[in-house]
Amino acid sequence: VTRRAFVGATLVDGTGAAPLPAAAVVVDGERIAWVGRAADLGGDVEVVDVSGLHLLPGLLDANVHLVLNCDPDVLLRYEPGAYDELVLEAAQVTLRAGVTTVFDTWGPLEALRRVRDRIDAGEAVGSRIRCAGNIIGNDGPWSTDFFPPYGQALNPDVVARVNAHWEQGVGAELTWLPAEGVREAVRQYLETSGVDLVKYASSAHREGRFVALAPDAQRAIVEEAHAAGLTVQACTQTPEALKLALEAGVDLLAHGANTGPSPMPDDLVELIAERGVGCGVCLTTRRHVEAARVVPGNYGRMLDAAGQNVDALLAAGARLTLATDAGVFGVDWERSPWVGGLAAGVPDTPLHLGTAHVLWFRAAAERELGLRGLQAATRDVAEAYGLGAELGTVEAGKRADLVVLDGDPLRDPGAYERVVHVVKDGVLVDRGRLPERPVLTREVL
Amino acid sequence: VTRRAFVGATLVDGTGAAPLPAAAVVVDGERIAWVGRAADLGGDVEVVDVSGLHLLPGLLDANVHLVLNCDPDVLLRYEPGAYDELVLEAAQVTLRAGVTTVFDTWGPLEALRRVRDRIDAGEAVGSRIRCAGNIIGNDGPWSTDFFPPYGQALNPDVVARVNAHWEQGVGAELTWLPAEGVREAVRQYLETSGVDLVKYASSAHREGRFVALAPDAQRAIVEEAHAAGLTVQACTQTPEALKLALEAGVDLLAHGANTGPSPMPDDLVELIAERGVGCGVCLTTRRHVEAARVVPGNYGRMLDAAGQNVDALLAAGARLTLATDAGVFGVDWERSPWVGGLAAGVPDTPLHLGTAHVLWFRAAAERELGLRGLQAATRDVAEAYGLGAELGTVEAGKRADLVVLDGDPLRDPGAYERVVHVVKDGVLVDRGRLPERPVLTREVL
Amino acid sequence: VTRRAFVGATLVDGTGAAPLPAAAVVVDGERIAWVGRAADLGGDVEVVDVSGLHLLPGLLDANVHLVLNCDPDVLLRYEPGAYDELVLEAAQVTLRAGVTTVFDTWGPLEALRRVRDRIDAGEAVGSRIRCAGNIIGNDGPWSTDFFPPYGQALNPDVVARVNAHWEQGVGAELTWLPAEGVREAVRQYLETSGVDLVKYASSAHREGRFVALAPDAQRAIVEEAHAAGLTVQACTQTPEALKLALEAGVDLLAHGANTGPSPMPDDLVELIAERGVGCGVCLTTRRHVEAARVVPGNYGRMLDAAGQNVDALLAAGARLTLATDAGVFGVDWERSPWVGGLAAGVPDTPLHLGTAHVLWFRAAAERELGLRGLQAATRDVAEAYGLGAELGTVEAGKRADLVVLDGDPLRDPGAYERVVHVVKDGVLVDRGRLPERPVLTREVL
Amino acid sequence: VTRRAFVGATLVDGTGAAPLPAAAVVVDGERIAWVGRAADLGGDVEVVDVSGLHLLPGLLDANVHLVLNCDPDVLLRYEPGAYDELVLEAAQVTLRAGVTTVFDTWGPLEALRRVRDRIDAGEAVGSRIRCAGNIIGNDGPWSTDFFPPYGQALNPDVVARVNAHWEQGVGAELTWLPAEGVREAVRQYLETSGVDLVKYASSAHREGRFVALAPDAQRAIVEEAHAAGLTVQACTQTPEALKLALEAGVDLLAHGANTGPSPMPDDLVELIAERGVGCGVCLTTRRHVEAARVVPGNYGRMLDAAGQNVDALLAAGARLTLATDAGVFGVDWERSPWVGGLAAGVPDTPLHLGTAHVLWFRAAAERELGLRGLQAATRDVAEAYGLGAELGTVEAGKRADLVVLDGDPLRDPGAYERVVHVVKDGVLVDRGRLPERPVLTREVL
Repeated sequence: VTRRAFVGATLVDGTGAAPLPAAAVVVDGERIAWVGRAADLGGDVEVVDVSGLHLLPGLLDANVHLVLNCDPDVLLRYEPGAYDELVLEAAQVTLRAGVTTVFDTWGPLEALRRVRDRIDAGEAVGSRIRCAGNIIGNDGPWSTDFFPPYGQALNPDVVARVNAHWEQGVGAELTWLPAEGVREAVRQYLETSGVDLVKYASSAHREGRFVALAPDAQRAIVEEAHAAGLTVQACTQTPEALKLALEAGVDLLAHGANTGPSPMPDDLVELIAERGVGCGVCLTTRRHVEAARVVPGNYGRMLDAAGQNVDALLAAGARLTLATDAGVFGVDWERSPWVGGLAAGVPDTPLHLGTAHVLWFRAAAERELGLRGLQAATRDVAEAYGLGAELGTVEAGKRADLVVLDGDPLRDPGAYERVVHVVKDGVLVDRGRLPERPVLTREVL
Repeated sequence: VTRRAFVGATLVDGTGAAPLPAAAVVVDGERIAWVGRAADLGGDVEVVDVSGLHLLPGLLDANVHLVLNCDPDVLLRYEPGAYDELVLEAAQVTLRAGVTTVFDTWGPLEALRRVRDRIDAGEAVGSRIRCAGNIIGNDGPWSTDFFPPYGQALNPDVVARVNAHWEQGVGAELTWLPAEGVREAVRQYLETSGVDLVKYASSAHREGRFVALAPDAQRAIVEEAHAAGLTVQACTQTPEALKLALEAGVDLLAHGANTGPSPMPDDLVELIAERGVGCGVCLTTRRHVEAARVVPGNYGRMLDAAGQNVDALLAAGARLTLATDAGVFGVDWERSPWVGGLAAGVPDTPLHLGTAHVLWFRAAAERELGLRGLQAATRDVAEAYGLGAELGTVEAGKRADLVVLDGDPLRDPGAYERVVHVVKDGVLVDRGRLPERPVLTREVL
Repeated sequence: VTRRAFVGATLVDGTGAAPLPAAAVVVDGERIAWVGRAADLGGDVEVVDVSGLHLLPGLLDANVHLVLNCDPDVLLRYEPGAYDELVLEAAQVTLRAGVTTVFDTWGPLEALRRVRDRIDAGEAVGSRIRCAGNIIGNDGPWSTDFFPPYGQALNPDVVARVNAHWEQGVGAELTWLPAEGVREAVRQYLETSGVDLVKYASSAHREGRFVALAPDAQRAIVEEAHAAGLTVQACTQTPEALKLALEAGVDLLAHGANTGPSPMPDDLVELIAERGVGCGVCLTTRRHVEAARVVPGNYGRMLDAAGQNVDALLAAGARLTLATDAGVFGVDWERSPWVGGLAAGVPDTPLHLGTAHVLWFRAAAERELGLRGLQAATRDVAEAYGLGAELGTVEAGKRADLVVLDGDPLRDPGAYERVVHVVKDGVLVDRGRLPERPVLTREVL
Repeated sequence: VTRRAFVGATLVDGTGAAPLPAAAVVVDGERIAWVGRAADLGGDVEVVDVSGLHLLPGLLDANVHLVLNCDPDVLLRYEPGAYDELVLEAAQVTLRAGVTTVFDTWGPLEALRRVRDRIDAGEAVGSRIRCAGNIIGNDGPWSTDFFPPYGQALNPDVVARVNAHWEQGVGAELTWLPAEGVREAVRQYLETSGVDLVKYASSAHREGRFVALAPDAQRAIVEEAHAAGLTVQACTQTPEALKLALEAGVDLLAHGANTGPSPMPDDLVELIAERGVGCGVCLTTRRHVEAARVVPGNYGRMLDAAGQNVDALLAAGARLTLATDAGVFGVDWERSPWVGGLAAGVPDTPLHLGTAHVLWFRAAAERELGLRGLQAATRDVAEAYGLGAELGTVEAGKRADLVVLDGDPLRDPGAYERVVHVVKDGVLVDRGRLPERPVLTREVL
């Protein structure tokens, strides 16, 4: 196999260096062999001419849910195939869009693991998946932690069976236990589950406002995760839940700028920055924030508070990362009881993988984040997950994950929609074929 | 192909004749060629020795629902295969039990039609299916006519899509129309739907107590059905709805002994007998009736009234027929919101195809119906549906639908469970293979 | 007691005669003693100068519900006082607005009867009440016939107790009975209930689209009502239910122009006109109809069909009457689960007694009904209810029910809001004091 | 006023001393003037002969809810009277039963305060009330913290208005706030609310399994309560919530033996004993525990765990107190959505004030608690609430709260049902008149 060079583009390498015009990147097998000026390129390489375009590291999304539409018509219909086809479709939707690595922080573990392994082994095409399985301490999608109406309308045996794909023995029953009981359950989970990362519920999920797991239980989980060599992150929705997670020693925050209707106190802002945890943020555009203000309920106030938190975290130098929390939905998603109520009618809702990160970059541009915005979606995610040596920048020796855009993303966030090439592990992706077998993204029946 | 003779059994031929010991029945192709004493049997035949057994016409169930479990986990999971596999499984469950013909009076029409045609063409094995599609005037299973909670919990687009498999354009919107509008809608339905029989809602279904379609609308439906050469039957739950159906000119009553908490007046009893309509009855055992009396709600009173109605109808000489209203369910059926509430904990609930007719015969035996009970499940169903020339008795020239039992069904209704052979259209069924692809009848996942 | 003369107004007497300027009406006791030109007035009378104003018969509303807000916070809070205070407040709201007689066609019978009798006896001030009690064949407000969510959330004993105030033994259980059973139940009801008029459910109420009572049952009710000397009317929502009611022989239709999403056939229009039944109509303004068209659901189509029906009925010469179906609500009515959903956000919703009839006259003016509109709210209501000899016009010998308006109602329907005097049974009402004890019309707690 | 002596009974004084036969207790005004042998009694006293009976301190219940039936038919009907009549009825039900002091730990504050003050001022008769108002951090009875179905079925304005009687500005919105925000809200509440004691949610209430308020928030509440001179207690349902409450420094635990489906770890048992906090326990009879085991759900396992906790706490010498958590209900309570589901069909459910404490003593007798059981219902409650100098024993100088029983409560817990006299603040209660105005305890309408 010969080596292949992408030649002529302006390189934004993710290291923080200034863009390099007329650059060349040489890929050898799965890795980047050389980076430099096109003029200096030599040797026996197959040249791909990308003049006039911009070349970036493959993007990393710190928080996705490859299976997020949990309506019964989805979870029941695709249960026989164990959701593998949903996971694969989603991983191809993201790859096509240039997001070469996704961190799935809540989903049906067996399917995620199987598809992850097939992609890693080169048997399937898709974004690199790293997955957490359950949010420890939460029950499954049809429980009171997420969307109780389904649990009331369906056969309880079926509800329990579907929820179990998520719960994996570390669900809400842990919140009844003493901390040592939680530790024991988590240890067993980590020994057998094959997860890549650990996430737990510091806030309860649905109501948002409670502490799900007590401080000692949180510490026990962090210790077990670290003993297993894994990063650990928390779901937090209130200032106090955020503080507990930091005190417990988490490495990342799933959506660290979300603190409910009031912004976080200054000492918390500083603590996040000081600890250097990876702080996932769901940036939203002004258009979205303004429309949300007139929606009944708390959503507008929460977005405002989150916006203030982001400003403060940026000023304090916290390590913010792209974390869309997005998934894949069908054409009828606005009428879905599951997500429709959240999002119907508010423009720029960043709910859909493949476009949610573009909305994030638009919001980043509104805040003039510049290079920092790009790094938040590349290098900083990789480092927060302890993968900085392999992923996140265009440097010799790293995995060859590249995106080529038609436009300058530092000036025009719309460039992220104009993907020309995606390279993952050195392979030039045939984007036009993706997703190979559309499921939710095809027209319904 | 040689001819095959079933030799040595006691024949109960369904005509009303006394049982004939040591009989022989010769089958040639799809039809019965000869019936007589074994001693008189001659010619070139392949002999099947059934000495010591009883030979009967294949049973006919005047009222079944091959798709009856309408829980979302069933209707959503099997929607991609359009329910064909559910229909086929059910038709094999019934065939295995000796019910060679079933009249499906409410179900997803396309699937029923497709499987019916495959079985008729010999491409699939199963009971002969004759189907009505929708109960004209009712909406689908997840509507307020049947089980509203699903409609409230699920995506309305999905609910509408699933209901449409049943509604076929002749749903509850017809109850808003003038009679001529109903006539027009029904005419179109009958021109294009390919149904074998017509059923409409004289009573509204769910609440049971209303008249769904006005008298003129009922007459219009009957006229259109007859013009199309089809029998027509009504769903009735109250005395007045029953009267309206008879006045409209129906040929059959789906469950004519059900009149709610009080029995029907004498004049109605006589009218049913006089008209000679096929009057489907769901006989239930004493054990069931007694257990039902202590269940909260009206169910016990309704069974008592139905029992009184059956006694009066029998005395008046009405043409009662086996009509189980049964379907196929999985192991978790008692926890199903759809049917669990109806039946949980009451023994002998005749809900399951394959066994419901045996419970019916047990109840018939309690009433000492004798030969009349057998005829109600054979000849009388065939005649009520206008198929007396083809089905319902063991007579030369008719279709060769036979059941061989180990035991005398006139003395021991348990004999219906001890099926030794089933012949349909002259073919000896390989019962052990049925159902070929268990769906609901296999253990769940 | 001296006689009192209202002198100088333009008289629109309700008989169909042209308005008479500078008229005088002499009241003696409870009755009108003399009507003529002011110039011809003589004798010993106390003169009330109403020059420049318009004098009309007191208005009659053919269809009201003095207790219509059936939210639990109303029905539970005021149950200890047995709803008398609600009924009286409503009767004072209507009297103050010039509606001197109201026909309550569905409500808690004991309270209605008690307040009716107190008003008739002069012990309380309020519009003359004539009441039907229950709509025969319907269950109470918290049943599935009206608003099922309450029945599911509250103590079933309490639900049954509250519903019983309405049901009075002639609720939905009648729909289960043979016609003779219905007859018997209705006969007993009429013997003991003290109702002034009879109403039954030809359409089921909540779903709107079913026939609630079968033809023979309807005929039995009409016969019993007539035998008791009472008028009888039906609730109808579909063309077929309307036809059945007419065939059964009703005297009035509660809202005869409502036939669901499609207009009634021509033969029905003619039948209504021919029979001369009092046909209640809820006229709505163009503004309301247009706003309703964009509301989700069927409401807009139903209003359009009703509008077409009204046009056809007018052309055919049917006897249409003012029938608002209105009630009294508190300040929080738009958030009421009971009525909020129906009406929230659509302007000119004619839901509130005291103003609904003004909206009706505005809609009548849009149709240029002129004198006919006024008669529909006076003489025609009285005659439809068989009270033409006593009420409905300003003629000597009739009861002295008068309204004096500041403006010409034939030119400006807004004049109905500018009530100057109301006279009932010869007594000049002290309108400023009404309602004497505001309940729902006061600010909540 | 002369002094009154109760003479001849066996005195069980609550101090731990052995029963004193033939004792005398002299009451002077509101207080006990002298305690000794009847033989030593002298002076000018009015003698009440209680020979053959047993004399005890008035009982104290550490955890009651004088308004506990939160069905809409109760809370809406009695809202106009602001629940005062419910509170007073309940306080008279308890007084009649010999419970002279009740600590109301969750209820509608204004009503509780008003009735408390009227009783303290001698303007009304009833048990001495000390009240907490809201459980800080919980929303009202119709919120998701307690019974969400009501909130979904009723007018949201009405739901908010009723909930506000409980929430008082320190509801679930506090769980969104940083600890300092919680402190500020609680400080304001304590300055203005007039509560006697403080209770907060360490566990969330409805789900039972979450931590409602974070550790720092809990500490802030405890500090503010102590600064205001009040005792503070927590609602806890899990081991971790219990630990947090103890770490925060609470003085009492509302139901400290409840830790969900598994018993508490040993170190928690010891911590409770060591700290000497008042640990409310809901003792239940064996009959109740056994029946609960066969009820679906977790209830049986929770009772078993609680039973083990009680044993361990007793062994460790913890200060357990009578804490029934009971209220007053009407005759239809088993059909109440609010409590019916909890308790229907399980015997000895300790839900009803007036009898729940007797069930508690029966359960105490099953555990052979002897004198310690009596002290848990007298002296220990008083001391836990810091009222040991005034209440809880029969000693000279203390408030004259006495109960005279016909039977020896140390041998026969049924003696607590045979109350002969109740004295409160020196006044002999006219028990036969109580409750003076039955509300829930009268037959319904």
